[in-house]
Amino acid sequence: MINFEHRFEAKIGKVAKEVIKKSFKGLERERDSDKIGYYNLPKNSSKLVNSLEVFNNENNYLKKDLIRDVVVIGIGGSSLGTKAVFEFLKHNTKTKRKLYFLENVDPIYISETLKRIDKNKALFLVVSKSGTTIETTSIFKYILKKYKFDLNKKSDSQRFVTITDKGSALSKFSDKYSIKQFNIPNNVGGRFSVLSAVGIVPLYLMNIEVKSLLKASENFIESFFNQKQNNILEKAFFYTKIAKRYPINVLFSYSSSFTYFNQWYVQLWAESLGKNDIFGNSVGLTPVHLVGSVDQHSFLQLIIQGPKDKTVTVLKVEDFENKSKIPNIQLDFLDNTNYINGQTFSKLINEECNATFETIVENDIPADLITLDKISASNMGVLISYYELLTSAVGQMLEINTYDQPGVEFGKKKLVKKFKK
Amino acid sequence: MINFEHRFEAKIGKVAKEVIKKSFKGLERERDSDKIGYYNLPKNSSKLVNSLEVFNNENNYLKKDLIRDVVVIGIGGSSLGTKAVFEFLKHNTKTKRKLYFLENVDPIYISETLKRIDKNKALFLVVSKSGTTIETTSIFKYILKKYKFDLNKKSDSQRFVTITDKGSALSKFSDKYSIKQFNIPNNVGGRFSVLSAVGIVPLYLMNIEVKSLLKASENFIESFFNQKQNNILEKAFFYTKIAKRYPINVLFSYSSSFTYFNQWYVQLWAESLGKNDIFGNSVGLTPVHLVGSVDQHSFLQLIIQGPKDKTVTVLKVEDFENKSKIPNIQLDFLDNTNYINGQTFSKLINEECNATFETIVENDIPADLITLDKISASNMGVLISYYELLTSAVGQMLEINTYDQPGVEFGKKKLVKKFKK
Repeated sequence: MINFEHRFEAKIGKVAKEVIKKSFKGLERERDSDKIGYYNLPKNSSKLVNSLEVFNNENNYLKKDLIRDVVVIGIGGSSLGTKAVFEFLKHNTKTKRKLYFLENVDPIYISETLKRIDKNKALFLVVSKSGTTIETTSIFKYILKKYKFDLNKKSDSQRFVTITDKGSALSKFSDKYSIKQFNIPNNVGGRFSVLSAVGIVPLYLMNIEVKSLLKASENFIESFFNQKQNNILEKAFFYTKIAKRYPINVLFSYSSSFTYFNQWYVQLWAESLGKNDIFGNSVGLTPVHLVGSVDQHSFLQLIIQGPKDKTVTVLKVEDFENKSKIPNIQLDFLDNTNYINGQTFSKLINEECNATFETIVENDIPADLITLDKISASNMGVLISYYELLTSAVGQMLEINTYDQPGVEFGKKKLVKKFKK
Repeated sequence: MINFEHRFEAKIGKVAKEVIKKSFKGLERERDSDKIGYYNLPKNSSKLVNSLEVFNNENNYLKKDLIRDVVVIGIGGSSLGTKAVFEFLKHNTKTKRKLYFLENVDPIYISETLKRIDKNKALFLVVSKSGTTIETTSIFKYILKKYKFDLNKKSDSQRFVTITDKGSALSKFSDKYSIKQFNIPNNVGGRFSVLSAVGIVPLYLMNIEVKSLLKASENFIESFFNQKQNNILEKAFFYTKIAKRYPINVLFSYSSSFTYFNQWYVQLWAESLGKNDIFGNSVGLTPVHLVGSVDQHSFLQLIIQGPKDKTVTVLKVEDFENKSKIPNIQLDFLDNTNYINGQTFSKLINEECNATFETIVENDIPADLITLDKISASNMGVLISYYELLTSAVGQMLEINTYDQPGVEFGKKKLVKKFKK
């Protein structure tokens, strides 16, 4: 269960209703077209879960439960979503396995990460939509060499799984060496791909409840298209029409478990919405991610007293299902900390969250509150879909292509030139 | 060695010269006053290192090398700086110890972190400038109870060190129970305190070269006041005078080792500069932190094609001193990744960095490049002082109090009311 509460004035007048209606129709068109695949992803991915069960019985290492380290080699959209979901749910997850990410080409980071991985207990997931992401293929090659894997031997090729578009170079490579591959639908972009094989394969292997995740996402998208989540369109309208006054959107999440969800949000928001619109104007909204209560002790100052150029979304977990309490200890000289004695940490962090939210609202900063009743796979499924739909709705209203990333390509071309010259 | 390269037009005309001169004089006044202590901190902290050596021989656990887990209990300015320095240098550091942080009151985070800590091998550092930070004292009490520590026994009280202002409630408490305490100078604020006992004690215990860190910082501050780092004042002028056009300052750091340095920067910048100025206007600049090459695959799109409201500082390590190479393997179908074969990862990440920087500059986005010759304690010392001085200079030009945080106090008062009602 998730509750959405808006504390900004949306002023849904006649113009707003028109914009909202037009945007909604645009989203319906996207969903019904062949071009944008994420709307139907949760439904389509349930077949994927079946094939994962088969794979689990086919792969010798998995069948015999010999895998301890699941290693995702991927960058950006190929790793962030998986991290977001896993870090949110891992404490409730029963598995002996550990999940690692190789997502940067920083040599120290690679060396330090590999020190913790046991080659003989590892399964490597090579994740690249295009199949030729230079960071991913470079690390892949490094691992092949370092551990002397011979892909012509089944015992070695079974150590690898690829996740890529059907027909990509990596897909063809996998076919040739009989490496198990899972495919990403062509019409699902990297940053919208967490509920495709990109996220579902590693999450399944880590024993995350992927079925609940997918089902909740599917239901939420359906309820949106049945016009039962109009708060999304109203929020998108507010963000879009007031964008020039509030160009920065802060997500202030009250739990360390949201650390990587926050980063997933940043990618989704920044890369989808930072665009030239159909008139050639530079548009976009800048995401900022904070974790409470830690960032109360830093960034909050800027929100409260700095320029009023930010909206704030506070994300909260009603019940952490953890009863740890601040003990009823009275320490000499520290009497004025006693008011909190006997309370749960869950209550403390949530009252801090409430205090922050109220302070923000009282300072006339446009804010909204998203409350999860608890930490669960289904709530994560809703949260993912909520942000994806919100992003698409804002994209419609900004009249941009939400799904491409031409600005990222400039640097890629430059890089190739640097090495080929 | 660090090199600073500006690629924005500072237009240092007559007015600029006046502003810069006035700001510099303001910083000199701050340094010479009793109010702002961080300028003299590196020098003063060298005595601290001596007393740490004494402490090392006094504490039975340390003397006998029985400590494996060093646990920092602290939030915001009491943890971020330590994390920033440690995460940057840890791979080069020889120690059997592990460093943990308890910085959030999220109950799951606390439980999960404590699972990894061995009570019998732990030293707990309780860090709170005021001495009564509610998150810190709550976690402290929780640990006392959970592990049944009896502070009247020397064997238990020796498991704790406090780091706090002299005369604070926590300081008096420490005196009473003969808990070793290190003090933070009264005139050094939390977010400027990394080179005080706040950072130096845990870093020393983790075998970080704190002397190099402090010496480099001291020299850099001295060279600034000898007017040999005027680039700082020029950058501050640019940021301040153009602030309304470019309200967002991105720090794009090309190494995973900078992850927590980035967060330290965010606190320093946001909390220091987000203020009401002397005329009552809300001023401030919004920090954004990115790690390359990962965020090339996300946020870069917004920088390049979104609204031109951002400056970008690219932070680079010239030589990672790690020779790992992309092997010369030609994989079937993946031929177009071969151009990178035989190169080091160090070269790859740095050419990606160069490509990003050039793309940003070509798109007329105000940018500068900070290049460290390598990862070292002394370079980190310079980097810390550079950002502190830059923050203070911008604060002078914005005519604000850089060192207070009234906006943070509102929520604190609300919190107390919620529990006391």
